[in-house]
Amino acid sequence: MHTLKEIAKIINASVSGDSAYCVNGLAACDKAQKQQLTYAVNQKHLNQLKKTKAGAVIIDQSLLAHCPTNALVVENVYLAFAQASHLFKKTVYLAQQIHPSAQLNKAKIAPNCIIGKNVVIGINSSIGANVVIEDNVTIGDNANIQSNVSILQSCQIGSNIVISPGVVIGSEGFGNARDKHNKWHSIAHLGKVVIGDNVTIGANTTIDRGTLEDTQIHHGVRLDNLIHIAHNVIIKQDSAIAASTGIAGSTTLGKRCMIGGMVGIVGHLSICDDVTISAKSTVDKNITMPGVYTGIMPLMPHKKWQAVGVWLTKLDKITQHLNIKLNHLKGN
Amino acid sequence: MHTLKEIAKIINASVSGDSAYCVNGLAACDKAQKQQLTYAVNQKHLNQLKKTKAGAVIIDQSLLAHCPTNALVVENVYLAFAQASHLFKKTVYLAQQIHPSAQLNKAKIAPNCIIGKNVVIGINSSIGANVVIEDNVTIGDNANIQSNVSILQSCQIGSNIVISPGVVIGSEGFGNARDKHNKWHSIAHLGKVVIGDNVTIGANTTIDRGTLEDTQIHHGVRLDNLIHIAHNVIIKQDSAIAASTGIAGSTTLGKRCMIGGMVGIVGHLSICDDVTISAKSTVDKNITMPGVYTGIMPLMPHKKWQAVGVWLTKLDKITQHLNIKLNHLKGN
Amino acid sequence: MHTLKEIAKIINASVSGDSAYCVNGLAACDKAQKQQLTYAVNQKHLNQLKKTKAGAVIIDQSLLAHCPTNALVVENVYLAFAQASHLFKKTVYLAQQIHPSAQLNKAKIAPNCIIGKNVVIGINSSIGANVVIEDNVTIGDNANIQSNVSILQSCQIGSNIVISPGVVIGSEGFGNARDKHNKWHSIAHLGKVVIGDNVTIGANTTIDRGTLEDTQIHHGVRLDNLIHIAHNVIIKQDSAIAASTGIAGSTTLGKRCMIGGMVGIVGHLSICDDVTISAKSTVDKNITMPGVYTGIMPLMPHKKWQAVGVWLTKLDKITQHLNIKLNHLKGN
Repeated sequence: MHTLKEIAKIINASVSGDSAYCVNGLAACDKAQKQQLTYAVNQKHLNQLKKTKAGAVIIDQSLLAHCPTNALVVENVYLAFAQASHLFKKTVYLAQQIHPSAQLNKAKIAPNCIIGKNVVIGINSSIGANVVIEDNVTIGDNANIQSNVSILQSCQIGSNIVISPGVVIGSEGFGNARDKHNKWHSIAHLGKVVIGDNVTIGANTTIDRGTLEDTQIHHGVRLDNLIHIAHNVIIKQDSAIAASTGIAGSTTLGKRCMIGGMVGIVGHLSICDDVTISAKSTVDKNITMPGVYTGIMPLMPHKKWQAVGVWLTKLDKITQHLNIKLNHLKGN
Repeated sequence: MHTLKEIAKIINASVSGDSAYCVNGLAACDKAQKQQLTYAVNQKHLNQLKKTKAGAVIIDQSLLAHCPTNALVVENVYLAFAQASHLFKKTVYLAQQIHPSAQLNKAKIAPNCIIGKNVVIGINSSIGANVVIEDNVTIGDNANIQSNVSILQSCQIGSNIVISPGVVIGSEGFGNARDKHNKWHSIAHLGKVVIGDNVTIGANTTIDRGTLEDTQIHHGVRLDNLIHIAHNVIIKQDSAIAASTGIAGSTTLGKRCMIGGMVGIVGHLSICDDVTISAKSTVDKNITMPGVYTGIMPLMPHKKWQAVGVWLTKLDKITQHLNIKLNHLKGN
Repeated sequence: MHTLKEIAKIINASVSGDSAYCVNGLAACDKAQKQQLTYAVNQKHLNQLKKTKAGAVIIDQSLLAHCPTNALVVENVYLAFAQASHLFKKTVYLAQQIHPSAQLNKAKIAPNCIIGKNVVIGINSSIGANVVIEDNVTIGDNANIQSNVSILQSCQIGSNIVISPGVVIGSEGFGNARDKHNKWHSIAHLGKVVIGDNVTIGANTTIDRGTLEDTQIHHGVRLDNLIHIAHNVIIKQDSAIAASTGIAGSTTLGKRCMIGGMVGIVGHLSICDDVTISAKSTVDKNITMPGVYTGIMPLMPHKKWQAVGVWLTKLDKITQHLNIKLNHLKGN
């Protein structure tokens, strides 16, 4: 619990409203309840701001007139949000090997595992050597968690899952706000990672926790090795992703998608169900039609790429055929 | 040991032949012996099927007439193979820190290592802190295995090797069969990883075990950090691979190859000896001639790329020179 | 301490000068002091060689006339340097959980941490479970080092840093010399990693130590997950790098740069301050002007790429418009 007065001091805000008002969490503008703080960066959030049920909102002066509740008025809203986020992050301190509050249900626990407070593990599960499971994690039945895995606080993992060695689940997302001196301020990620049933995760893959809401991996998903799943990504049922692919923050991947190796998918995109992406492609726009896509930037449908690609390797011949010389072409 | 009757129940097959026949392993059609089960997916395996020495074969109805031995007849052979594979996977349970059957030959073992049954480590070796070595692993002389490494069951590692922190050797391959409801079924990988002498492996690199046969890293190979080596890949003598590169399943790389960073090599390819691939290239076809290759898709020889690349950055100028407008070009 | 005679035997050199002369370290030609050994490969090092203060130099016959000090004359200088480097590498043997010489300043140390000789940790720091910190590492105040991290010998880490699970700091660089039989010989990396204050490092990222000098990550830098930072890279203040990016050896990145995900930056480059690189780009030349850059090889300014990219997807249409057929184009 923090009063608005306390928070205002930390984020260098002026309070409009009740400075003794208490909040106990941070949430998105359209989800926040009366005991929670939220933020609204600009006109994009204006409609949500007008209807917010939050107990308080971090805003700048330009939005104050539209704020229906207590406000913390700052110059740089995103920076203030980053600074305030750390107030609501729980520190985990693993003081002992296996905390007595953990419910292990006779799981096979290999040597040197560290298991935190209130962890719950389902029946018939096995936890490999040197695995670290932080406080409040839940894991389903028949889980096979292999050596040197780290699962961070409060993540939820389903049944019948296989997690390969070296995997990290629930690491901090890569969210940072910049101040006027161009210094970065990390955002504390308060969401978690939620993983469904029948999921497999390959060696040394990393899955970041969400900022305010959760990163989600739905039932039946297959992830290969060395994959990066950023904060707030959602991967829907029965999709499969090959090695060394990366998906940037807040992108949603549909059901039954098949993503090749070393694909890069940029943030805040929506990929529909039944999409296949060829290895090494970059996906830089939404995909709304099922199909096979391939490409370097800019992305194009695979058939299109086949038509273009055949000419690409002939480009010098084309210019030769046309008798085009470099000095025919103006500028650089 | 499993009878065909037992297996048929698990993979939903009808038995043609002796349902009391026992098998104790899975092998490829051309390698399987009489105590082993194999599978033949389609016409591609027809010749192997006719000559197989396997005790039993998983096939579909269309191949039954050509089967010289007991058959387990199913609708989806690859799926049935995936389901059957788990019967032959040994579960490893590391119940204690260092199993008394391990032969350590006075290796320097740092604190918190976990070493399984029947592990053999050669003379003058050192094993870093928090390393996990599963059952039946063998490691040669003068091995330098650094902290937080995981080496999974039955892998074989040569002498004079350096394995950097966080490396995973012998993780499950990314092999999955899809059922008619588009659900994925993992294949249990029954092969191992075999690594020769004088090999170095960089931090957090992952090497998957083979499906039925072994993933192989031959003598003198150099692997940098964060590399992905998939199941059944073979990397021949004295090749060197830079960081963040990925090689997909069943590809063979020749001797003395030099592969740049962030290269993607697709599966089932054969790259000949003495090939150099420039950083960030994609290799999507066999390479049969030594030389330097560079490219985005489609792959081309480096000299060709140099000729093409110079025009690529002029493409807008070319169209301008030719007075081509976008609306001159029909379609999309 | 090694005499030139001892070293000559190991690297197969003839000594020119005092074979009883003792050296206790290796350094670059322009930095080496009289107790140190250095090397000069070719004409590139000639000016440095003439002015070197080193006690001895590994050179080939062609440079001997210009050598102002003792010389170890070999056929393949770089190979001899690789072989000699191992003489000066300290072996770390972590014999116990926490070495009594470590100064922990009441840091919170989770279970199963291994902490080597002479490690110094600042006040108010926390070290996660299963972390390995080798001899002579220093870590500042308010450090948050999470589970399964490996920090190798002698690395220096600042205050207010966050290191995510699975990170490796100070692994060997990917430097190898080839002999006349095309066998690789690893270079022992004698430099360290030096990390400033207020740095965050994402899960499973790896940072290699320098060859003779240090890999440097300056104050305020942000590194995401699964990033590869090679030996001798310098990343200046307040730069941020997104996931799965790799930077090859000896490249310097300026201040306040923002590098997208899956970018590959080749070695020995210099990128100036305030450069932004779009996701998935390859950087293959120095950048001397601030700005936004995007591209596959060859690299081009983002605006240029936008102009080119629009035509790239029309390439088949262009050839169609021009009535160019494949068989119009001579050769392949």
